Amino acid sequence: MQNTIILIACDHRGIKLKQTLIAWLAANGYAPKDLGTNSEARCDASDFAQKMALDMKAGIGRSGVLICGTGQAMAMTANRYRDIRAALCSTAEVAKLSREHNDANVLVLGADVIDEATAQQCLEIFLKTPFLGGRYAERRDKLMQLGGLE
Amino acid sequence: MQNTIILIACDHRGIKLKQTLIAWLAANGYAPKDLGTNSEARCDASDFAQKMALDMKAGIGRSGVLICGTGQAMAMTANRYRDIRAALCSTAEVAKLSREHNDANVLVLGADVIDEATAQQCLEIFLKTPFLGGRYAERRDKLMQLGGLE
Repeated sequence: MQNTIILIACDHRGIKLKQTLIAWLAANGYAPKDLGTNSEARCDASDFAQKMALDMKAGIGRSGVLICGTGQAMAMTANRYRDIRAALCSTAEVAKLSREHNDANVLVLGADVIDEATAQQCLEIFLKTPFLGGRYAERRDKLMQLGGLE
Repeated sequence: MQNTIILIACDHRGIKLKQTLIAWLAANGYAPKDLGTNSEARCDASDFAQKMALDMKAGIGRSGVLICGTGQAMAMTANRYRDIRAALCSTAEVAKLSREHNDANVLVLGADVIDEATAQQCLEIFLKTPFLGGRYAERRDKLMQLGGLE
């Protein structure tokens, strides 16, 4: 996964956590691509989830991180898109399972409801855990076949 | 909310928790509608999220509960549908915020990662907390306008 591009975006509630995770990614050999916001002005999480979906569809990145206050707006929006499997995670164990069982390609974090150390652990395990495949691949493919926004 | 129909579904990992929550709903004046599964045989969470989406579109229920092992498969599938705003919750506080800020209409729970008491608290507060409206309504409407599966 070294030098892999990791897309990362947030709304105004997630800027501080995003900066922390961007620093961690850069320090650990990943190439974070910051899709914003970087303004404290109130904005809509859905606009940034949409940006990520478009970049993923274009093949710019295969994994991403979305952050808002609780993560709900990001998870609701991102999962409307066919190419995204977004997992809102509150613990490293959940992040691990989202990779193993769901082949999640976007980690969603709620900046107001998770501490920075746990968020960093979620990100690390999310990036390092492979998908188990097998019957889980059948389920993932079924979800992809359902479709969604493009 | 008394006698309100509450749609509820799970995969094979969520049967026990679903039974507990159905009993709580019935004892508290709600009308739970069980969409399955009630078989211990392995099944796909996405099939049951889809059932809920179709019932919601048909106006059979306005609120729902989806349960799988971690909640991720349910949240990923349910949020592909235009009429669903599904919130994976691990604490009552997150469940409250998902109603206040996101007007979530489906509570998603991970049976393997939440204890029954917390799950019940999440459900109670989810059903009792009103949406705040205002600027949150603008964001919800923007999400609805994005579209999704029907």
